[in-house]
Amino acid sequence: MQKVYLAGPDVFLPDAAEIGRRKKELCAGYGFEGLFPFDNEIDPTVSGEDTDKLIYRANERMIRRADLGICNLTPFRGVHADAGTVFELGMLVGLGKRVFGYTNVADDLLARCQRLDRATFDPVQRLWRDANAMTVENFGNADNLMIDNALIDRGGHKMVRHAAPRDRVFHDLTAFETCLRLAAEAVSKSA
Amino acid sequence: MQKVYLAGPDVFLPDAAEIGRRKKELCAGYGFEGLFPFDNEIDPTVSGEDTDKLIYRANERMIRRADLGICNLTPFRGVHADAGTVFELGMLVGLGKRVFGYTNVADDLLARCQRLDRATFDPVQRLWRDANAMTVENFGNADNLMIDNALIDRGGHKMVRHAAPRDRVFHDLTAFETCLRLAAEAVSKSA
Repeated sequence: MQKVYLAGPDVFLPDAAEIGRRKKELCAGYGFEGLFPFDNEIDPTVSGEDTDKLIYRANERMIRRADLGICNLTPFRGVHADAGTVFELGMLVGLGKRVFGYTNVADDLLARCQRLDRATFDPVQRLWRDANAMTVENFGNADNLMIDNALIDRGGHKMVRHAAPRDRVFHDLTAFETCLRLAAEAVSKSA
Repeated sequence: MQKVYLAGPDVFLPDAAEIGRRKKELCAGYGFEGLFPFDNEIDPTVSGEDTDKLIYRANERMIRRADLGICNLTPFRGVHADAGTVFELGMLVGLGKRVFGYTNVADDLLARCQRLDRATFDPVQRLWRDANAMTVENFGNADNLMIDNALIDRGGHKMVRHAAPRDRVFHDLTAFETCLRLAAEAVSKSA
């Protein structure tokens, strides 16, 4: 049975354990074993090592054990995806694993920067700049071009975008399940 | 000569080419060849392929060619590091390269979440939550624990933190040069 690493800011939810349980249940329905990083939570009383270092190492081991990754790239604390998830996506790609990703906010990065980061058009250079005058990519991607294109090159699919209800942005699993379906198809084709 | 991949949101600056030139000059002073992703800028008129895909592939090739990476992890569009840079840090780690990182904002992730994302203390669970009730890590790290600990495990050093003047946050190269010094020491030790 192929193992799927379940990356996402889901681990920061008050009901993280429940979300992890539901994701792993959905994985099983598609013939996968789901690996949820929250299961690596370390008891700080049992070791002299720093808790965060132990979590890092446990997550890294889990990523290495996985055959593929499904990443929740929903914008987190701003216009971009969660930094921890993006790091793990990069590591999965560096390790040559197949990757899939989804977001529960459907619009482009540029639209979010216009809405949340006062992006304006620079008529001289003919490009968009954020509040710090930094260029905003305008390729129609959901996030930084490295993220969107890694998914296309290393999983065969664009980031799955789903406009979840506002109060369900970190709980809606519609797009996650679409990724599971795409992953199952990819695995069966290469089997 | 060892090659250093220069990851960072520097590529989005109006004077990106000039910053790249200065970083490569500093690299040369420490015996490194600097690889700056902006040099991969693609002329969209010469190819039928999507520009963003060509940039992705050129950056990925550059990362694979590098012996190590120095990542500018200064907070970008919010409390976390730039998503593209974090992706590249993950890829460098997955590929087994040595990594170093710096930030030009000296405070902890928690302090930034308190200041910018209305983080409050949950007295029942005894942890900090951001405006969306998502847990804020409180390990004294500069960013997500995956980022800080990847640098320690795969480069041997904590993220270099430097309180740059407010108007120099994306231009100050003090901490970048500290990373170069640490990288040069590491390379000479393992030679």
